[in-house]
Amino acid sequence: MRDAYHEELDALSEKLVEMTRLVRVAMTRAVTALLDADLKLSEEVISSDEQVNKLDAEIEETVFDLMARQQPVAGDLRTLITSLRMSNDLERMGDLAVHIAKTARRRHPDSAVPPELQVTVLEMGQIAERMIAKTGSVIASKDVEMGLELDSDDDAMDRLHRRLFDVLLSPKWKHGVEPAVDITLAGRYFERFADHAVHVAEDVVYLVTGQRPEEIIDLS
Amino acid sequence: MRDAYHEELDALSEKLVEMTRLVRVAMTRAVTALLDADLKLSEEVISSDEQVNKLDAEIEETVFDLMARQQPVAGDLRTLITSLRMSNDLERMGDLAVHIAKTARRRHPDSAVPPELQVTVLEMGQIAERMIAKTGSVIASKDVEMGLELDSDDDAMDRLHRRLFDVLLSPKWKHGVEPAVDITLAGRYFERFADHAVHVAEDVVYLVTGQRPEEIIDLS
Repeated sequence: MRDAYHEELDALSEKLVEMTRLVRVAMTRAVTALLDADLKLSEEVISSDEQVNKLDAEIEETVFDLMARQQPVAGDLRTLITSLRMSNDLERMGDLAVHIAKTARRRHPDSAVPPELQVTVLEMGQIAERMIAKTGSVIASKDVEMGLELDSDDDAMDRLHRRLFDVLLSPKWKHGVEPAVDITLAGRYFERFADHAVHVAEDVVYLVTGQRPEEIIDLS
Repeated sequence: MRDAYHEELDALSEKLVEMTRLVRVAMTRAVTALLDADLKLSEEVISSDEQVNKLDAEIEETVFDLMARQQPVAGDLRTLITSLRMSNDLERMGDLAVHIAKTARRRHPDSAVPPELQVTVLEMGQIAERMIAKTGSVIASKDVEMGLELDSDDDAMDRLHRRLFDVLLSPKWKHGVEPAVDITLAGRYFERFADHAVHVAEDVVYLVTGQRPEEIIDLS
């Protein structure tokens, strides 16, 4: 049987997983809202971010409370500080889903994504969803292998991000400046979303192995 | 006389101030590089970011080391965790200066900023420099008044950011898509830079007063 303290640590990890679940739903909806110019869905993403922020605040409070009451050392201390950092990353990922939803809302009833970029944006959305789903699994299972996979997902996101710019800056682009601004910002939001997912996975890998992912990959 | 432990805490604070100094130099140079299409200056910003990252890593190591050896409680513990967070924010601000320098480098020998936006971008740069300078003073002096000023600087940055978009999206814009993409990204980097400065100041205000800035402003 686990003591009350370790039950509280487990509860913290469950809250982080719950955050990934909420962020995943937000991202899925934000991408659909963006591609389909769905105003109702954008509003849902924007208003439900409050739940993510609430969990972030709760986690911060629990971490400070546990530190003050239990004076944890070594591994437990590292777990607590890392939880704080992962919570901040996930909160930020929620904000980025909101930014994508707001881009959709700003152009409604038009779609912010011109036809020739719909597939690329859809793929970026799918990678983002896959990454946040894996992030949740990595937190729950402490699966180092899966944590390391996030790096190649991030590479795939970067490739799609470059493809966006290739289309935007090609002489064939005929949509003018406004959609170019929207796509530039949306591309940046997806890219940052992926970076934060990588950070969370790196923190888990570090907690489990004591090594940063680049050290593990160098050795393998 | 202070004991060795509190000397180490002071040293931590000095390192944070040193980070603000490096980030300030980087931002000043990045803005000049952007406005004057100065390739050499861009390269300097990009290569000197290593020093900022090094300080961030040192601060992280010191914090973990102090936590493990000293098992600090209450105020000291909060100081350590907050130092970690401020260091991360400052490291990110260094990255944003690098992103601005890279925007300048990408368009060299052209300037990424069309003539009618030079003044606005210059003002955004000046606010960014003022904010990072104040951030350094706030960390060093724990001056709550100055910490709260960062909020109105951030509002000024937001107004300039909106002005950028007004110019970009006006029917008079004649520079096409590529400069619009550059300006959109640069605007986003300035805005995020300001957000991180506000976060750092908020953390200091919280350390000193035990209250988040919005609570203090509500009461005044």
